[in-house]
Amino acid sequence: MGLGKRTDFGDAKYAGLDVPFSCDIVQTLESALQCGFDFVMAPLVHPRYRRPAPSALPRGTFQPPFTRSDLLLTSGQWSGQVVGKVSPWIDCDSASPALARDSRAALQQELAWAAHLSLQAVALPPPPQPLAAANYARLLNQALGSLASMALWLRIPAAAPAAAAGSDGDAGGLGGSSGSSLAGDPWEWWNQLRFLCHHNTRLGVVLELGADLPSEGSLLRWRGEPLKAVLVPTSIFQTNKRGYPALSKRHQEFLGECFRRGVQVVLSGAAQHAPPAPPAGNAAAVGPGGEVAAAAAVQQDSLRVYWEYLSYIFRKIEATSEQEMVEMGYRDYLQSPLQPLQDNLESQTYETFERDGMKYSTYEEAVYRCLLDRVPEEEAESRTTVLMVVGAGRGPLVAASLRASVRARRKLRVFAVEKNPNAVVTLQNRVVADGWQGTVTIVPADMREWEAPEQADILVSELLGSFGDNELSPECLDGAQRFLRPDGVSIPQAYTSYLQPITSHKLWNDVRAYDDVEHFETAFVVKLFKFCPLAPTQEVFTFEHPNRSHSIDNTRSIRLQFDCTPPGGTGKLRPWPPASSGLPAATCRCCRPLVCLPSWLCHGFAGYFDARLYKDVHLSIHPPTHTPNMFSWFPIYFPVRTPFYVPQGARMEVHMWRCAGQHKVWYEWAVTQPLASPIHNPGGRSYHVGL
Amino acid sequence: MGLGKRTDFGDAKYAGLDVPFSCDIVQTLESALQCGFDFVMAPLVHPRYRRPAPSALPRGTFQPPFTRSDLLLTSGQWSGQVVGKVSPWIDCDSASPALARDSRAALQQELAWAAHLSLQAVALPPPPQPLAAANYARLLNQALGSLASMALWLRIPAAAPAAAAGSDGDAGGLGGSSGSSLAGDPWEWWNQLRFLCHHNTRLGVVLELGADLPSEGSLLRWRGEPLKAVLVPTSIFQTNKRGYPALSKRHQEFLGECFRRGVQVVLSGAAQHAPPAPPAGNAAAVGPGGEVAAAAAVQQDSLRVYWEYLSYIFRKIEATSEQEMVEMGYRDYLQSPLQPLQDNLESQTYETFERDGMKYSTYEEAVYRCLLDRVPEEEAESRTTVLMVVGAGRGPLVAASLRASVRARRKLRVFAVEKNPNAVVTLQNRVVADGWQGTVTIVPADMREWEAPEQADILVSELLGSFGDNELSPECLDGAQRFLRPDGVSIPQAYTSYLQPITSHKLWNDVRAYDDVEHFETAFVVKLFKFCPLAPTQEVFTFEHPNRSHSIDNTRSIRLQFDCTPPGGTGKLRPWPPASSGLPAATCRCCRPLVCLPSWLCHGFAGYFDARLYKDVHLSIHPPTHTPNMFSWFPIYFPVRTPFYVPQGARMEVHMWRCAGQHKVWYEWAVTQPLASPIHNPGGRSYHVGL
Repeated sequence: MGLGKRTDFGDAKYAGLDVPFSCDIVQTLESALQCGFDFVMAPLVHPRYRRPAPSALPRGTFQPPFTRSDLLLTSGQWSGQVVGKVSPWIDCDSASPALARDSRAALQQELAWAAHLSLQAVALPPPPQPLAAANYARLLNQALGSLASMALWLRIPAAAPAAAAGSDGDAGGLGGSSGSSLAGDPWEWWNQLRFLCHHNTRLGVVLELGADLPSEGSLLRWRGEPLKAVLVPTSIFQTNKRGYPALSKRHQEFLGECFRRGVQVVLSGAAQHAPPAPPAGNAAAVGPGGEVAAAAAVQQDSLRVYWEYLSYIFRKIEATSEQEMVEMGYRDYLQSPLQPLQDNLESQTYETFERDGMKYSTYEEAVYRCLLDRVPEEEAESRTTVLMVVGAGRGPLVAASLRASVRARRKLRVFAVEKNPNAVVTLQNRVVADGWQGTVTIVPADMREWEAPEQADILVSELLGSFGDNELSPECLDGAQRFLRPDGVSIPQAYTSYLQPITSHKLWNDVRAYDDVEHFETAFVVKLFKFCPLAPTQEVFTFEHPNRSHSIDNTRSIRLQFDCTPPGGTGKLRPWPPASSGLPAATCRCCRPLVCLPSWLCHGFAGYFDARLYKDVHLSIHPPTHTPNMFSWFPIYFPVRTPFYVPQGARMEVHMWRCAGQHKVWYEWAVTQPLASPIHNPGGRSYHVGL
Repeated sequence: MGLGKRTDFGDAKYAGLDVPFSCDIVQTLESALQCGFDFVMAPLVHPRYRRPAPSALPRGTFQPPFTRSDLLLTSGQWSGQVVGKVSPWIDCDSASPALARDSRAALQQELAWAAHLSLQAVALPPPPQPLAAANYARLLNQALGSLASMALWLRIPAAAPAAAAGSDGDAGGLGGSSGSSLAGDPWEWWNQLRFLCHHNTRLGVVLELGADLPSEGSLLRWRGEPLKAVLVPTSIFQTNKRGYPALSKRHQEFLGECFRRGVQVVLSGAAQHAPPAPPAGNAAAVGPGGEVAAAAAVQQDSLRVYWEYLSYIFRKIEATSEQEMVEMGYRDYLQSPLQPLQDNLESQTYETFERDGMKYSTYEEAVYRCLLDRVPEEEAESRTTVLMVVGAGRGPLVAASLRASVRARRKLRVFAVEKNPNAVVTLQNRVVADGWQGTVTIVPADMREWEAPEQADILVSELLGSFGDNELSPECLDGAQRFLRPDGVSIPQAYTSYLQPITSHKLWNDVRAYDDVEHFETAFVVKLFKFCPLAPTQEVFTFEHPNRSHSIDNTRSIRLQFDCTPPGGTGKLRPWPPASSGLPAATCRCCRPLVCLPSWLCHGFAGYFDARLYKDVHLSIHPPTHTPNMFSWFPIYFPVRTPFYVPQGARMEVHMWRCAGQHKVWYEWAVTQPLASPIHNPGGRSYHVGL
């Protein structure tokens, strides 16, 4: 029935119930559904039924059916309402050869049975031997290769049980970093299995919450991972004043965060609260299932209060803004950057960008301030400022400049230069329709070639890409600045790109799905969503306009170093941006103050820009200074060919180059620490922007 | 003219001379050739000519030619007798922006010029900023991508200069291993550049020797690397009693080792020895060039004694054995393992294997001892031993068994079982030709299906692959043992496989050249040559025959751990095999006692086997116990998809599985430390042996 009516969190609205083994799965499922849940997580075989491997039995030994019949439910019920659970005794890496052998056979048998039932997913126990689970990994990997579409959900505790946390076992010494206790960090368990299974997209994680949540950094790291569900035991609920179950504030926040990211919740364990029967009025509030539930089994009926609580958490999350709703379809979706110089944009693309009111009002403000600065009040009537819009498109910057001129009471003569003949049609029509005659001259030309009849006071452009200079704003403005007066102003005056390492299992796998080198060497525009920023951003390249150097060189190179948390610093909150930077504190969810993360897995780099339009008027998609409500740019994503691990206390070093040839501009990038990667995109072989 | 007449070391016979810049390159080359050398390593541009990058000059600035004309030599001379040298002042990663800019331009200019001259190779200075040479790497990588066939030889000092060895600079903290001084190990410089250039096969190394050679381990590591030449400065020569230059014993050994591996030598520096003029008789000994050389330039004539010394080292290397000559063509050449069960061998293949006298005399010895053990002297006449050869091929084991019977004076009845109908023709003919009538019965059948008329005392087979069980000897013998008497003997009685991590740039690149996943998941038979074993071998799987278990399971799994030298242990000699093992000390070059290596790069694993034919009669290709003069098996090579670095002090852990399905047997393998790799060959998808 769903935890609520809202549809903006995808599958997160469907909650599951972890049920014990029952021969009468029909009744079990029925009760769970009546209780409000949408599916059950049910053992495939009785969890205490340890059976010997067939190979260990004499030939012809009678084998009873190892579990109940598939005829109990319809195939639609199996596939839509049941997630299978693999037996908890299975330990494929056991030191006991017999247990290991029986475990392997049982695991294969249960996975084959689950596939036979067409289950969508099977939940797997955490590796019993953390970081020494190679045999387990081998069987999972084999299953991923052979089972058509069934997903494997690996259960991983959010915090390691005390025993594992204490010792490193046999597994230490990773990368020579002694003293680290990898086995005590369950993310490491997942990370090793994920690598052994070669980042298979059908291997996901079910995070098991405990009464104590691990450090903020540990939780944060899961944001970039394929988290499928969160397991919430009834035992971690507290009791509120009225006797009802409730979660701690931190648990509530984390659960809300999971819902927002489309992660499902699964309740586990027996009811531990028996609140007084709700008054009649309350039943209506929790949905139409209320009356029916009353007739269901006592045990599961008593879980109703937990479901209601989960529903309450789900429903209380603040409404998604209209802008977020629009952007939802773009989340983690790889887009190739525009090639505005080579290609002409389509009407639809112009329309989308023009809808960004915030962007144009910021431009208007920049032109307004510039006009006031350049033309004193006493010359307002006598002096006409020449403003050229280079890359005018369908005219939004022309309109913004004219609005600024009205507000500033300064006279303006505008040249609108546009190379796209189709956009020129719109411009020419607007001259008549919007009464621009005598003020605006339309110039159908490439700004790099046009011979201007006079020099401009102000050169306005919107040529920035997600990474600032990546759509060749520097080259275009260098070409256009020859018709700017010596004291003229370019709007923007400067722009800087920023970079940060990120974890994003999904994005990296989407790039890998192309199965070629080219896409690993391409930067993509993408609305980052299921990702985890691993360190504060750092500045990359800055360009200033006009550029009066005697010989302009727009190539750049930089080395950036990102430090992983020193050992012992785990989880300590580190305010970001630092107070000393003078930047406003970041508040939006995607860039809230970063905390120290233990170790990392880096899938590549997220890039942003911050442009200074005029003096302190900025246009920015750099998280700490993001222009509010502006949606014209998503971040850029530079993938790496192989995700790489950065152990706690290590340094990550990346090089980025902006290169230029006669007909193209491109980036190359490489990691040099902790280990060197290949240099990506040599000579722009996979990705470049044409001049 | 070559350092000697022998041709068994390939290009190593051609020595080069590192010459200073000279406008008269014709004379320089001529003198070097007359001195005995076959090529010169000559600066492309005057080494002190630091010129500004064109982009830094005002337009239209007059640029003089930056070097001498290409017309001075013919293109044949340029490509056949000159290796170019890039200017030593070039520092693309300099902290000075101007120097870095000029360096990049000059490097590109010189590489382009060298390509214009069709040089075969260009020698590059060592990275001036070790481990911080990303800009240098980028330009080299770009050149490797665009220059058609020219090789780049990176000069790397064998031992770091004192300054670099002391500090780690900015580059430390690799993998969190603090305290290591990576910049002090020039192999690390190479390793970083090689990774950044993505293991390009046209990037090689010129090792610059100094007066002091680094530890044995440091030198050993270069065996698996693409070493193109060794640079020997005149300054490191000592003076012998007669005033002639000579090298230290250790230098001599290393140089000899290089020659054997086809590595060229290049002499550098001015003459520092002036021995008395040789008596007339001596001139003849050094070759026909002697008289002409006398007329050449004084400086280069005085280098003649060095050339003679190099020639002496070259010529004194012991002669290559006939067997080595035969195997030479197979060195580092990847062969797919045989599939003797699925495919029938060709006559030629039988012929090659039958030539291995050592193998069959070892079998003969095993049968001989077994006959003596089973039939006491007093029953020699009355008792006939039934011996079955399963997989008889064209009969070599039949013949060996018959020879054993004659030597032992024991009576024998032989069944020769062979499934290949073509080999059966040979067998049937041999019955007549070799007088086997009445003793040998030919059985054209698959041993797994044949119904034997009586039970055998001895079951003889040669079904072993390079990795022991990899050609399915276990499955075949399990099938055949049903016609073995309960007290019968299988020859072999048991076999064990061994594994060790290796560095082999060439093999890994040859696998990569297939450009698919399949070949990275295939084991290859290969005569390992340019490789470096990284740790002593360890046992993998053992099989014993007959196998009387009530249910036979031939699947296996194992986890092996190899420790990299602990920090501080660098270069300390570690005897291998350990004295306590009772194994004979290894003596052949490919397996002489291993020393501790600093850090590693692992390209995969070398596999071997040791079979116990009967009691202490072994057949082995396991280096410490290799049966002398036996050539039927080369080692096996298991590649890894990505070469991985193992820092000093770390542990490497690998898992190997032998898996079996209904119709096939295959291996899977994975690395789990220092970092997890994907599991290779899941489900035998890329490589399996058919049953």
